[in-house]
Amino acid sequence: MKTEAFGNLVDELRKAPEVALFSHVSPDGDCIGSMLAIGLALEKLGKRVEFYNPDPVPKNLTFLSGASRIKPWREGMFLPQALLFVDCADLQRANVEDGQIPVQATCLNLDHHISNQNFGHVNAVDPEAAATGELAYDLVRRLGVRLDQGMAENLYTAILTDTGSFQYGNTTARTHQVAAELLAEGIEFIRIHHQIFDQKPLAQVRLLERALSSLELFADGKLGIMVLSIADFAASGAEDALSEGFINHVRTIEGVEAAVLLREVEAGKVKAGLRSNLWLDVNVIASRFRGGGHKRAAGCTIQASLADAKSLILAAIEEALQIGRSH
Amino acid sequence: MKTEAFGNLVDELRKAPEVALFSHVSPDGDCIGSMLAIGLALEKLGKRVEFYNPDPVPKNLTFLSGASRIKPWREGMFLPQALLFVDCADLQRANVEDGQIPVQATCLNLDHHISNQNFGHVNAVDPEAAATGELAYDLVRRLGVRLDQGMAENLYTAILTDTGSFQYGNTTARTHQVAAELLAEGIEFIRIHHQIFDQKPLAQVRLLERALSSLELFADGKLGIMVLSIADFAASGAEDALSEGFINHVRTIEGVEAAVLLREVEAGKVKAGLRSNLWLDVNVIASRFRGGGHKRAAGCTIQASLADAKSLILAAIEEALQIGRSH
Repeated sequence: MKTEAFGNLVDELRKAPEVALFSHVSPDGDCIGSMLAIGLALEKLGKRVEFYNPDPVPKNLTFLSGASRIKPWREGMFLPQALLFVDCADLQRANVEDGQIPVQATCLNLDHHISNQNFGHVNAVDPEAAATGELAYDLVRRLGVRLDQGMAENLYTAILTDTGSFQYGNTTARTHQVAAELLAEGIEFIRIHHQIFDQKPLAQVRLLERALSSLELFADGKLGIMVLSIADFAASGAEDALSEGFINHVRTIEGVEAAVLLREVEAGKVKAGLRSNLWLDVNVIASRFRGGGHKRAAGCTIQASLADAKSLILAAIEEALQIGRSH
Repeated sequence: MKTEAFGNLVDELRKAPEVALFSHVSPDGDCIGSMLAIGLALEKLGKRVEFYNPDPVPKNLTFLSGASRIKPWREGMFLPQALLFVDCADLQRANVEDGQIPVQATCLNLDHHISNQNFGHVNAVDPEAAATGELAYDLVRRLGVRLDQGMAENLYTAILTDTGSFQYGNTTARTHQVAAELLAEGIEFIRIHHQIFDQKPLAQVRLLERALSSLELFADGKLGIMVLSIADFAASGAEDALSEGFINHVRTIEGVEAAVLLREVEAGKVKAGLRSNLWLDVNVIASRFRGGGHKRAAGCTIQASLADAKSLILAAIEEALQIGRSH
């Protein structure tokens, strides 16, 4: 990150008597935790702070200090001169349109997404940070505010959720350094883990049982495919979103390189999630079905029956597994 | 830990030309990783090192640098004057008997278990450490050896496995500090996570499917019970050990306070694993069946049919859930 931009951000926030914080649609632990920590710190400096998010705070994050104060911003509601966008790659992510921002306002942009559009007057963007929470930690420190339990728990939650408990590839030495300093504040991280991760609806477990029962291995065990039909979702009473993470049950089987979860979202329309472990580029596979993503995690939507979608994906991946290593 | 003991340990190792390292039966990532890191460091100092463990290195740890050199010690094999026991609460854990240790030998004891028997001539025991790996890290530093990739990966594995990826309550600020320093060495921690955690036999997934299909909730959803019969193990081709961790699928359901997994290990003999989230003392429950453990994790063996064992455990926990909170 350009340290100059970060310094400018600190200066702008120091001089602002009132700040509105915005975070992104479909909020996650990083955007909520970062926004709350910064806002609570600004209040310690005597500023008026408003917390805006277009969507409700997910149930497993409502325990966070300040979470109940987050509300959707609507035209006509209070907007001070300083607007801080947290964890948003662009304004659309905050559900705000260019024209809605007063001309005299200062747009401040704090984010870690490499795709950030630098839409602010000040753009403190650091793609090296595992979570915006790491940057929020630095910001609170630079503002000279002493961390309290509430802030520390918000920051820890931000980092915990965006790194999958320090397991994703974005985790760095710096991530652990910040976690060390947050734990040193005496936060109850066990309670946080319980709040964040241990709140699975029963329907999700029922859905997992159905997904596992559909599991088949192909290509000498290098490819695993699970399918969930509309009937599976109906019988278990689970929404589509509850299948998130199921694909890891396939990816983590010994010998598996490629994992697939096919979800029938409506008749004739199937969403495919693709993962690989060490070498297969699933982004290439997904692209063949007009989808995309990253080398190790990608997705696509296939207009076909569940059975046909499975045949198509199976053929594509079997071929890629056969030729892939010979290049 | 008494820093004096740690200093004595460093002194003894510095002056020893030959060192034999021992770790415990049913080896885990902490004992293997710690032992290997220390041994490799001692070799950098020009010492002859032997690595002894009574059991084979688990398959998912064989990738560790030096793992192929670990072998069981048998009477008559090389034993130098300096013997370092790593992660062993007592000599029995290393499958060594008092009488087998030469009278002139110096027993060095490096461990983090609170139950450590201080069986050594030097006892560097620190129950505050999340893993012996944290102490091994300090030791390597104090020996003045520059960490290399192999040592760093061994130490990271030790800490990763004993903290469940920084999720268990033993994790401290110090744990994250050490992890930060290991990541700064440029270790491929993603590959380590894959080696350690992503090697599930297919039989385990088949067994999980059966366990989930048995899941029932009781006590207004505060208690969840899963059962696995001998037939379930046979049909899925899985050994008893593969059911480890299944209970977390129950514990993490929204609203659940107590989770139970009952495994029929032979006709008329059922092993019960008990977990709780926030307040129920499952150690008390397990004690009623002559078992034990900790407040949040305990176990017992019940001589009964699977159905009878389930009734007994269900009644005991339902009662505890009802009266527990009124104390």
